[in-house]
Amino acid sequence: MSHSTKCAACKSLRRRCCKDCVLAPYFPPTNPQRFSRVHKVFGASNITKMLEQLPLHLRAVAADCMSFEASSRVEDPVYGSVGIISQLQEQIIKAESELAKTKSEIAFHNAQQLQQQQNESSSCKIEELHDTDEATTNSTVKPVSSKNSK
Amino acid sequence: MSHSTKCAACKSLRRRCCKDCVLAPYFPPTNPQRFSRVHKVFGASNITKMLEQLPLHLRAVAADCMSFEASSRVEDPVYGSVGIISQLQEQIIKAESELAKTKSEIAFHNAQQLQQQQNESSSCKIEELHDTDEATTNSTVKPVSSKNSK
Repeated sequence: MSHSTKCAACKSLRRRCCKDCVLAPYFPPTNPQRFSRVHKVFGASNITKMLEQLPLHLRAVAADCMSFEASSRVEDPVYGSVGIISQLQEQIIKAESELAKTKSEIAFHNAQQLQQQQNESSSCKIEELHDTDEATTNSTVKPVSSKNSK
Repeated sequence: MSHSTKCAACKSLRRRCCKDCVLAPYFPPTNPQRFSRVHKVFGASNITKMLEQLPLHLRAVAADCMSFEASSRVEDPVYGSVGIISQLQEQIIKAESELAKTKSEIAFHNAQQLQQQQNESSSCKIEELHDTDEATTNSTVKPVSSKNSK
């Protein structure tokens, strides 16, 4: 028994699309380009073999990934999906470098704030000492002043 | 004329390795596994076609990339190199999220520091006013005191 409508793979390969066609669920006749790209890069025989080796529930994801890889290689015949990997790795290096820079800025801010707090603390101590001195001076001056006022 | 030693591809395909063998420069007999993986995933015919379509100086990089892609698919038959792309994308999302978090921390630090500076500035103004008040009090007290002392 065959499908009423041939899948994109069987249509492209001009063969009968049997009920158990391994490729039919993942390469519908509505998207012939999808099969065409995968066929050009991996070959129909390899795709079939690779899908057959997988349990049924993983085949759709595998077909999607192979389709993505094939599209990448058609768009970039030199680097293919490895080109995307390189770009992403560069992006990670950039992001991680910016993160390290930003973290060092935070460390600088923290050190600066600590320094400021220490300075304020020293300044407070000096002011306290100064206040104590003033209080002492006032207390020695007051009796003199009160003496004079008497 | 053929190579004195067959390349990994011609050895695997049990054929004569001609002088102009497209695969020979990139699949040496010393590394049969490299060809075996690429053959399993892309097929010898597709690799040859894809390399032939490229200028000579780009073929080595393309062969390396195809070899990497094939290894990825042999190691991970469901996701292949797309699995690496997904992992890297997750890593980027993580790094960018950490970066955004760290930047917001910096913005908080800056706002905190600005607030502190404004508080110090207001505190200085109050102290200045206080000092002026004290000076005024002293200057009004002094004549009284001097009057008394007279």
